[in-house]
Amino acid sequence: MRLAITLLLAPLALAPARAQAPAPAAHASATPRTTAEILEATRASDWRLVAAEDLLILTLGDGGRVLIELAPAFAPRHVASIRTLARARWWDGLAIVRVQDNYVVQWGDPDARKPLPAGVPGMLAPEWDAPLPARFTPNPGADGYAPEAGFADGWPVAVDRARGRAWLVHCYASVGVGRDEAPDSANASELYAVIGHAPRNLDRNVTLVGRVVDGIERFSSLPRGTGSLGFYERAEQWVPIRSVALSVELPPDKRPAVEVLRTDTPAFAAYLESRRNRREPFYLNPAGHSDLCNVRLPVRVRLP
Amino acid sequence: MRLAITLLLAPLALAPARAQAPAPAAHASATPRTTAEILEATRASDWRLVAAEDLLILTLGDGGRVLIELAPAFAPRHVASIRTLARARWWDGLAIVRVQDNYVVQWGDPDARKPLPAGVPGMLAPEWDAPLPARFTPNPGADGYAPEAGFADGWPVAVDRARGRAWLVHCYASVGVGRDEAPDSANASELYAVIGHAPRNLDRNVTLVGRVVDGIERFSSLPRGTGSLGFYERAEQWVPIRSVALSVELPPDKRPAVEVLRTDTPAFAAYLESRRNRREPFYLNPAGHSDLCNVRLPVRVRLP
Repeated sequence: MRLAITLLLAPLALAPARAQAPAPAAHASATPRTTAEILEATRASDWRLVAAEDLLILTLGDGGRVLIELAPAFAPRHVASIRTLARARWWDGLAIVRVQDNYVVQWGDPDARKPLPAGVPGMLAPEWDAPLPARFTPNPGADGYAPEAGFADGWPVAVDRARGRAWLVHCYASVGVGRDEAPDSANASELYAVIGHAPRNLDRNVTLVGRVVDGIERFSSLPRGTGSLGFYERAEQWVPIRSVALSVELPPDKRPAVEVLRTDTPAFAAYLESRRNRREPFYLNPAGHSDLCNVRLPVRVRLP
Repeated sequence: MRLAITLLLAPLALAPARAQAPAPAAHASATPRTTAEILEATRASDWRLVAAEDLLILTLGDGGRVLIELAPAFAPRHVASIRTLARARWWDGLAIVRVQDNYVVQWGDPDARKPLPAGVPGMLAPEWDAPLPARFTPNPGADGYAPEAGFADGWPVAVDRARGRAWLVHCYASVGVGRDEAPDSANASELYAVIGHAPRNLDRNVTLVGRVVDGIERFSSLPRGTGSLGFYERAEQWVPIRSVALSVELPPDKRPAVEVLRTDTPAFAAYLESRRNRREPFYLNPAGHSDLCNVRLPVRVRLP
């Protein structure tokens, strides 16, 4: 007896992009469709190609690859620092030093001794929020943590219209910048990715810079650190990083093609509704709601 | 530079129980305290010992141990079936067959051929909700998925007072019963544990029977299955289960002592508030909210 819990997004995220489906006049279909049917009916214009200068390729010592999309609109100074570090191949040969269950994977310089390349400031002022985005698609229902929450340009964001500010939120696979207690104690050389239930308590307390769009399972399946806060206790436990490079530094035919589902389209509105009220036959009690981080943002990847 | 993101619960959950702290008159302290300070000041009476007949001990092939508390108040028939299966040592020698990233780990009989012990019905009617609990501590703020959400007897629950019903919710580490499409297609021989962001869409669509109270990282760090829905594709990938036993079947001096923080006490109210508004110096912008599944329920374990 195989359990038939159905979740189609993870397979989609990991599979090579399928050939573009033909474009039926399906967007305005009156019959409620399942998530899979909605995704199958998307058109090329429903997807946004991640720019090569916003795509970080992290390769582990065992060859496993993790793709990270950077978010310059939300953290321009930190993203600039990350691009400089990646162009200098500063992370090459460094390591993952911390894996805390249901929380974060963190990587950087275990010895905290490697000199930073020119152009990376010693410390950056935090970028915990940003101006309101031009296009915002609300996630229906209360968020709890923020006056409004929803999606902008393919990112999960919270919004405070009264203050005119928006910010990226901590969902599974979000990538942020490690800091010490002082808010301006980070320069983006030490990064973390969320591998557990959304730690929204970190929103507006840490600068988020992007999210893992492919390969998060390379992080989430690592052995947990047994030291305080999940740090590995011995140097031989560190997980080697072979390289971290910007996709734009690669020859065009060597770059992964990563597309994220646009969040300002009728297709996304249908997708969102299908996550609130699952239509797969497995579900007898549709929830009528999906919290922001339970709306997985579809990605498709074509590796070179 | 070490990242100072502070989360003290995971270490607490894994450490042997420390000697009971002395009982200062600290419950009504006027000074806001951190989560760690609140837990440090708890008294013996703030904790509930998990009954040995409600404690399932799953031992993996490599000796790794996972402790699961059963929830007979919410799913009495399924828990009875699980107890019968464990007493018959039915799972001994079976395997984990599915690990889907950010979703579930699932175990049972890979060949679906092992005869069930006497007393286990072929199929059970679902137990997706239960009567309202005698004591309920609301989680402040909107839940989104249910009219009310909070805690009862140490469990995260949702409540619908109009219907007079309550149900366990899917949080990280929740344990449920696999089924096929028909709602009455489960007998509790195939179980799963959540290893990702709370899939609340499953609430009231699957029977929840308990939660992992220790050792969830043994599940969450397993290699992900590459088949559909995260199933392992080859038999040699299955993760062997050495045994699944009820603690009450062991001699008293061999039983793990598992205590969960009671949720109907002033200590828990203080704990809950400290999770909504983190007081550790790291936090400059306390969230003012904690969603139900981001309130980790403290556990302390003393192994024999």
